[in-house]
Amino acid sequence: MTTPIQDARPEPGLLIVHTGNGKGKTTAALGMLLRALGHGQRCAVVQFLKGKQPTAEVILTQVAALAGGALTWDRCGQGFTWITRDRDRDSADAEAGWARVRQHLADPDLQFLLLDELNIVLRQGYLDPGTVLAELRERRPGLHVVVTGRGAPEILMDSADLVTEMNEVKHPFKAGVKAQPGIEF
Amino acid sequence: MTTPIQDARPEPGLLIVHTGNGKGKTTAALGMLLRALGHGQRCAVVQFLKGKQPTAEVILTQVAALAGGALTWDRCGQGFTWITRDRDRDSADAEAGWARVRQHLADPDLQFLLLDELNIVLRQGYLDPGTVLAELRERRPGLHVVVTGRGAPEILMDSADLVTEMNEVKHPFKAGVKAQPGIEF
Repeated sequence: MTTPIQDARPEPGLLIVHTGNGKGKTTAALGMLLRALGHGQRCAVVQFLKGKQPTAEVILTQVAALAGGALTWDRCGQGFTWITRDRDRDSADAEAGWARVRQHLADPDLQFLLLDELNIVLRQGYLDPGTVLAELRERRPGLHVVVTGRGAPEILMDSADLVTEMNEVKHPFKAGVKAQPGIEF
Repeated sequence: MTTPIQDARPEPGLLIVHTGNGKGKTTAALGMLLRALGHGQRCAVVQFLKGKQPTAEVILTQVAALAGGALTWDRCGQGFTWITRDRDRDSADAEAGWARVRQHLADPDLQFLLLDELNIVLRQGYLDPGTVLAELRERRPGLHVVVTGRGAPEILMDSADLVTEMNEVKHPFKAGVKAQPGIEF
């Protein structure tokens, strides 16, 4: 039985995880972001790996303007230790990224938050999964959070409302086809 | 060794399949479409199941206009026999949808073609997978085709350049959470 006060509460936001070794994790999150912006929602993206998404960022910012929504987009990090060979800097970048996430979590109007490649940050130990999860779980109702990246920690998947694993069955780079505009970036 | 004439040929377009029982198949395809439009490409969508994507359609049409690309979007079919209980009509809808695809395949300027839920049409036997595949393989260089839907036929996956299987690990509907705007549609 629900009381009128309970009925008036906003729906809980979903915690969604896209993981697996296949393609489509970030791309599907961008598709969701597109829909959210199309509904005029207030959205934010924090990229924990500097990704090749200037196209999406530019276009989605325009979509936000068209649809009456709002989009902020931050890029943190350089590419992580196997590229940067500088664990201290990577760790500091991850901390700075999470500080930005905290600002978003404190925004009473935010409706959609994409944390791109956060799983990798957690897997690499730059942020503590337990702390991150606790802060995400304390978010206010109505805020959807999407976390992408291969190797999602078990405790995050256990707490998520929706987990999709994108598995690679075939990948053209293995057959020598180059990355192509409009497909890969 | 390549000759100048070979160098001048456009890259072959990719045949991409998104399948599996999880979420994100169409959403990832919409994310790719967004990128393609952002590059000013000429794109088309044929939906073989009437989907809930008015939001994406409206917004992506605006994106196309902004970015100097072009987008045409067709919806064919009502929902298939398990809903319509009318196999003859469903079959006619599928044939009409494929006739539209043939027009797109004949368009010398098209760069990106999304065939949404085509896998289901093939699985249900409304179109012959061998015929469909043969026509897709004969497409001109430079045209990317993305096919979505669960239950992709083996011969399609065998011929594809990239196959991603989206597998459901957890789904909120099973836990009683309703579909939400900006997430599901």
